[in-house]
Parts: sequence; structure tokens; C-alpha cells
Amino acid sequence: MPSPTVDPNLAEALRELGCAGATELVLGGMPARDLAQRFGTPLYVFDAAVLARRVARVRAALGPRVELLWSVKANPSLAVTRCLRLAGTGAEVASLGELHLALAAGHAAAALRFAGPGKTDAEIDAAVGLGLGCFHAESRSEVAAIAAAAARHGTRVAVAVRVNLPQELAGARMRMGGRSSRFGVDAEQVPALLRAIGADARLQLAGLHVYAGTQCFDAAAFVQHAQQLVVHAERWERDLGLALCELDLGGGFGTALFEDDPVFDLDAAGRGVRELVAAHDRADRRWFVELGRYLAAPAGVYLTRVVRTKTSGAQRHAALDGGMHQAAAAAGVGTVLRRAPLVVHATRLGEPAGDSVALGGPLCTPADQFGSAVPLPPLAEGDLVALLGAGAYGLSYSPHTFLSHATPAEVLVGDGPPRLARQRGSARDVLRDQAP
Amino acid sequence: MPSPTVDPNLAEALRELGCAGATELVLGGMPARDLAQRFGTPLYVFDAAVLARRVARVRAALGPRVELLWSVKANPSLAVTRCLRLAGTGAEVASLGELHLALAAGHAAAALRFAGPGKTDAEIDAAVGLGLGCFHAESRSEVAAIAAAAARHGTRVAVAVRVNLPQELAGARMRMGGRSSRFGVDAEQVPALLRAIGADARLQLAGLHVYAGTQCFDAAAFVQHAQQLVVHAERWERDLGLALCELDLGGGFGTALFEDDPVFDLDAAGRGVRELVAAHDRADRRWFVELGRYLAAPAGVYLTRVVRTKTSGAQRHAALDGGMHQAAAAAGVGTVLRRAPLVVHATRLGEPAGDSVALGGPLCTPADQFGSAVPLPPLAEGDLVALLGAGAYGLSYSPHTFLSHATPAEVLVGDGPPRLARQRGSARDVLRDQAP
Repeated sequence: MPSPTVDPNLAEALRELGCAGATELVLGGMPARDLAQRFGTPLYVFDAAVLARRVARVRAALGPRVELLWSVKANPSLAVTRCLRLAGTGAEVASLGELHLALAAGHAAAALRFAGPGKTDAEIDAAVGLGLGCFHAESRSEVAAIAAAAARHGTRVAVAVRVNLPQELAGARMRMGGRSSRFGVDAEQVPALLRAIGADARLQLAGLHVYAGTQCFDAAAFVQHAQQLVVHAERWERDLGLALCELDLGGGFGTALFEDDPVFDLDAAGRGVRELVAAHDRADRRWFVELGRYLAAPAGVYLTRVVRTKTSGAQRHAALDGGMHQAAAAAGVGTVLRRAPLVVHATRLGEPAGDSVALGGPLCTPADQFGSAVPLPPLAEGDLVALLGAGAYGLSYSPHTFLSHATPAEVLVGDGPPRLARQRGSARDVLRDQAP
Repeated sequence: MPSPTVDPNLAEALRELGCAGATELVLGGMPARDLAQRFGTPLYVFDAAVLARRVARVRAALGPRVELLWSVKANPSLAVTRCLRLAGTGAEVASLGELHLALAAGHAAAALRFAGPGKTDAEIDAAVGLGLGCFHAESRSEVAAIAAAAARHGTRVAVAVRVNLPQELAGARMRMGGRSSRFGVDAEQVPALLRAIGADARLQLAGLHVYAGTQCFDAAAFVQHAQQLVVHAERWERDLGLALCELDLGGGFGTALFEDDPVFDLDAAGRGVRELVAAHDRADRRWFVELGRYLAAPAGVYLTRVVRTKTSGAQRHAALDGGMHQAAAAAGVGTVLRRAPLVVHATRLGEPAGDSVALGGPLCTPADQFGSAVPLPPLAEGDLVALLGAGAYGLSYSPHTFLSHATPAEVLVGDGPPRLARQRGSARDVLRDQAP
């Protein structure tokens, strides 16, 4: 019997988990079915060993001069954030909540960066009070609020300016710069702002930040955009007589999460960044790259069980106990076209597909579907379906209180025995925080 | 000075809130700015009086023979669900969580209906244990699970079958029937299932349910679809010699939530339903219509404050403290085309618009935007922006832990003094349920 064709991205996702050629999904040495049995479904599983390998690979590619920041927004899991810190990442946060999470994961406040276009005065004040290392400022008004907070706390606060460069990032799925943008400060407005920061005794001018887009699959475009930042930095340093020591080149490396996704050339990006750094380095310079999805997505799996099967029209349907309320990105929320997520029959890997099956969740909406005709080995009630590449923009990116199902548990594997990282919610959680 | 043109849907939304011709937004007798001052922002406000008026209007339209069910999924707010119960609605739930919520809101378990395509054995068992009134079954397998639970609890359980009618519902934004569907049981499979239920001593055959689509703006299409259900019911009663007393005609009445939405003709739908009921009524018949968005959306407002303003390119930008993480539908999540939600400057109603403003939230994604060029009176930092029509598919439909911002508070007005219905979250909630 010929072995079934496997999509290359799916094959790579399995290889990354150490399951190439396996007959069932094994995560951190434990069969997925045992994890599901022990911790219940739906279940998020994160593999610490995969996280550490991803960090090591990216650091090797970027070279020793670049500091790697974990974008907590990609997965506000304490266990994942701690694993990534132990593997050598710093962190950038985008809310006071993420700041608290990073602190709980063992990061020093002074090493953290706080980004985001809508930081409130109260958030800024609290962050300064906690000893935050550096703000990535998005507007002149925000800089004033940071200075006021610094004064209130009797401290000096570091500020980098997020720049909206005139060039768009080519090849990114979601662009955040290059035209009128709510992200960053337009390049022509930056010099005046840098001068104001430099002249303010309450502030310490740290440098520049750029983040032009996410899911960028074009390594050359990323490098070119980073290069633009460096060109601007050196020009402004010269023109203004100011030092811009910290250069955060952004991130958004493309991660193949659907069957037709291209593959990001990490080596090419790393080579380009290393060359850029080598050409513009100096003793007081710090270089940063920030990554979320690229580090964590391949380390996560969402396990869900088939609750019911039925036939409608000529199509087999499986209703899962998990769905778009807990894995919205895989269900296509936020994308225009429905695409095939990386899904497997967890206990029958590599077996030939039977008739295709429509994979839906428990919600009363057609949007709760991972595919309308997925080629999988025959699914029976009780079988386990696994979504791979689910380690980033999973639960927190999903409307998980929609229809008031309990939140799934999360488990960390690959770092000693499996351990519960997030306890399963209960059906009564819907009443939590509501007045009786 | 000519008065500014106001979109008719926006004008109607203001009228519904009792603010036609007002110079600022007043909710349940209290200025929105006072509510924001007292309870903070971002803030959801629900008006009990509007909820009661909506229910009264729909009940009058549908006539005394039709029981109106509140679809809890549209807003799992205890306060809203209680208001709607007091206004005369029953409730249908789609998870064990919603069942608990409906019970806490004062509904009798025996009067509740439990719908949804992926009810687990455990959920079914718990619901039977709580004395649930009736399941809307979606598959033969589910019927077997209900019968097993009934046996375990030594009781008899009522089951209605959700039917996937061969005709699609015309004019609905989201269709859930008429072709291969994970919703309901294909019409040709229904007779065998009805026979099986009728023959099972553990089950009591209640009737039929249909729900073909949501945001249906075509009243005639809704009535025609309901008619199809009745035709099928009578044929199956005749053919099988069984009584199908309960007929749930579904719902999904279109609610104008964007500036270009059409208007649903409630009177025409009501007339059609009343005629249908009159022509097919009998003493043992119960008729149901279930509504979520149509009852609650116009009763809710999402209040958010301008944190920062800036100019990028030639465009003014306002960064709000609220965003798509708390009001995803208004930000266009789940729709292909971005449309203009019903948004006002809360303290300068009816004033002419200045230059357009891009309204974004605090998240680090371009998706977090309520409009890229909204015509509003000039917005300054600290100003209040209100999204109208936010009483359904608001917080719970949104990825509200994305970026780990605190959940907003919710307030009930229009029923005595304003009172806190949901307490505001805290920045430390990100650690809740996570292992330390």
C-alpha cells in the first residue's frame, strides 16, 4: 500500500514534535491519548523541549549580538513564558497584565519592554512603579505621560520610539507601517520627538523600535526593513547629536500553520541580520529581535475529542468537544479565506485517509469549523483530533467565553513529567465576577 | 448651520435608547459620562427598560400563542438574562455553563431548552441531573446519550429533533441548513429518529426545532422556512402516528448594527407567524421563537475613552482604552468586509463631524480598529466614544484575554439606580487558574 501523501508543513510540524514516522502522536515522551485521558479534553499541550530548541535555533541564526525577546501576547502562559526565559529570551509586554505575567515568570522588571498603541496613564504609572525597563512609545502624548509618571515616582525612565518607516514591509500578511498608521510615529515626526525626549531629565532616550508586520514569509524583506531602521537611526544620531543605542528590529517571522503556507528562511534572515549588525555595531549598541508565534506555535498542540459523528448530505461530520472558541486562528477567524489547519488523527498518524470529514466544534455557529472536508483516517466517537502549531495565538486569541464552555486545561511536557500549567475551568465560571 | 446627516440605523439606535435629539448620550436616565466616571472605562452598559420594550414589541408581533425564548449565548450576563425573564422570555441554552447561568437568573430547569451540536455525555448527564426540560437533539448518537442519562437518573427526558430542512433560508447572513450541515438532522433521516424516540420509554418526544440562519433580514423568508417546518411536522405526524406538539421556529431576526444594514420587518414576520399559528394551531401545540441579538443588541452600549490622539500621514488617529478584544463584532471580526459600526461621540451627540478619525484600540494588531476614517465631532484625549447596538455578541464573543487586559465592568441601568452587574477585572487576572 502506498504511504499517504502528507502535506510538507504537516510533516514538518510532526518532525518538530519528534513524531516523524510515528504511528501516534507522542508529546514530550507521553502519548497524546494518555495526556487526554489524564488531563481531559479539550487540552492545550506545550512542549518545553521544542520551545528550547526553537530559541536555540533562532539565537544561533541571529548571532550573539542580538537579544531575543519573547512577545508575551503570543501566549500568556506562565509555564511557556518561564520556559522561554530559561531558554534565554527576554520579554516584551503589551499590557499591565502581561507585565505581571512576565514578572511572575521570573523576568526582572528592569529588563522588560512595554509596547502598545493605547497604554493608559494608569498603566504607565503602574509599570513605572514596578520598575519597568523601557517603554516603546507610540506618540508624543504617551511620552508626556511617561515623563509625568517618572516625576511622580522620582525616577528616570527609558523610552524608545516606535517608528513608522515610510516603506511598507513587503511579504507580510498583516502590515502595520508605511502609510497612515496607528502604530509608531511617522518618520518625519521622529526627530522632534527624539529631541524632546533627549532634553527631558525625567527620561532616558534608549533608541528606536520598528515592527512592520506579522507572518512575514519574506526573509529579505524583513532584513531590508531592519536596514531602513538602522539607516534612519544613524542619520538621526548624526543630525540630532543624540545616541540611539537600542535598536529593536521587530520580528513577525512567518510560521507555517496552514497547509499552503510558505516557509520562512530563518538562515537567510539570520545571515542578513548578522551582516547588518556587523556593519553597524558598536560597543554601546544593543540589538533586539522580538518573536512570538515563531518561537511558540510549533511547540503547542490542541487536543480535542470527537463527541458525535453523523452524515448530512453525502458528507461525514464530526462534532468535537473543542472548537473556535478555544482555537480561533485555526478555525480561520481573522482570515478572509478558509484554509486547512495542521490537523491529525492523534492515534492513527500516517494511516491513509478515508472519506473526508467535516470537523466542527460545539458552538452554534458555522464559523466553528476546522475544515469542511478534511482527509483523515476514519474518525469514531471518542477519537482524538490534534491541531498542531497551536502554541501561539491559541486560547488567549479566542473568544473562549463564547457559549460559556469551561476553559481547557493546559499542560507542560518535555521538561520532566507532564504537569498542569492551567487548571480546567468549570461550567459555573460563567457566574464568576457577576453580581448575584 | 444645517444639521449633520445621520445614518438612519444610528438614528434608530439612539431613538431606541431614548436619546433622539439629545446633545449627549444618556442611558437609563444617567449621562454616559457620569457612568464612565463612576464605573470606569471600558464599560458595557445594558438598559433594562430597552430590553423590556424589545420583548414587549416582539411578543405583541408574534401573538399570544408563541413563547419567546432568550438565546443566552447572545449575552451570558446574569443581569440581562434576569431582566429578559422578568419581561417574559423563556430561555434556550447551548452549554452547561449557560444552563447554570439561566438557573441563576431564576429560570426553572424544567422550562429550559438545551441546544448545540456537540453536547458531551457529561454535559447531558449533568443537565438531566439538574432537571433540564428539553434537549434539542442534533444526531442519533446524541439521542442515545440522552436516553442513557435518563436511565441513569431514573427519569424520563423530553427530546425535540433539530431538523435540517432541504430548503436554505434565503436572506440570512449566516446559513445553517439546507445542504450538508453539522446542524440538525437531515429531513430524510428524521422519521426513523422520531420513531426511535417515540418507542423509547426513557424519552418523551417533544417535537421539532429548526434554526436556519442568523441575521436574516428577510421576514418573508423566515416565515416561509417556519412554514416548511410545520408542513414537515404535520406530514410526519400523519405518516408516523406520533404527536409533535412543540414546534420551535428558530429566530435570527436581523438587527441593524452597521450603517448599511437593512431593517428587519418585525410586523411582517409577526403577521406571518400569527397566520401560520392560526392555521395549524391545536390545544396541545406549543410554539416557540428564539431570539438573542434582536432582543439584546439595541439595549447595550460599549463606552470607551480616548487614551491618545495623533496624526499619521494626513489622518487623525485616536487610540481607545477599549477595542476588538472586548467588542470583536463591532471591529469586524467574523465579517469579510469592514463596515461602519454605530459609533458616537458620547458627549457631543448631533454635532457636526470634523475631520474623520481612525478609531483604534490598545492592541498590537491592525484588526483592533472600529473604523479607519470615522466622521465624528473632534475627539480629544479623555473623550468618551460609544458603540451602540452592543448588547449582544459583545464581551463573550470577543477574545477578551488577548493581550491580557482587564475585563471591562458591566452595568445595568433603566431599572432603578445603575448597578454593577459584572465587576471589572484586574491586571493580575492573567495569573488566575495558572499553576504558580
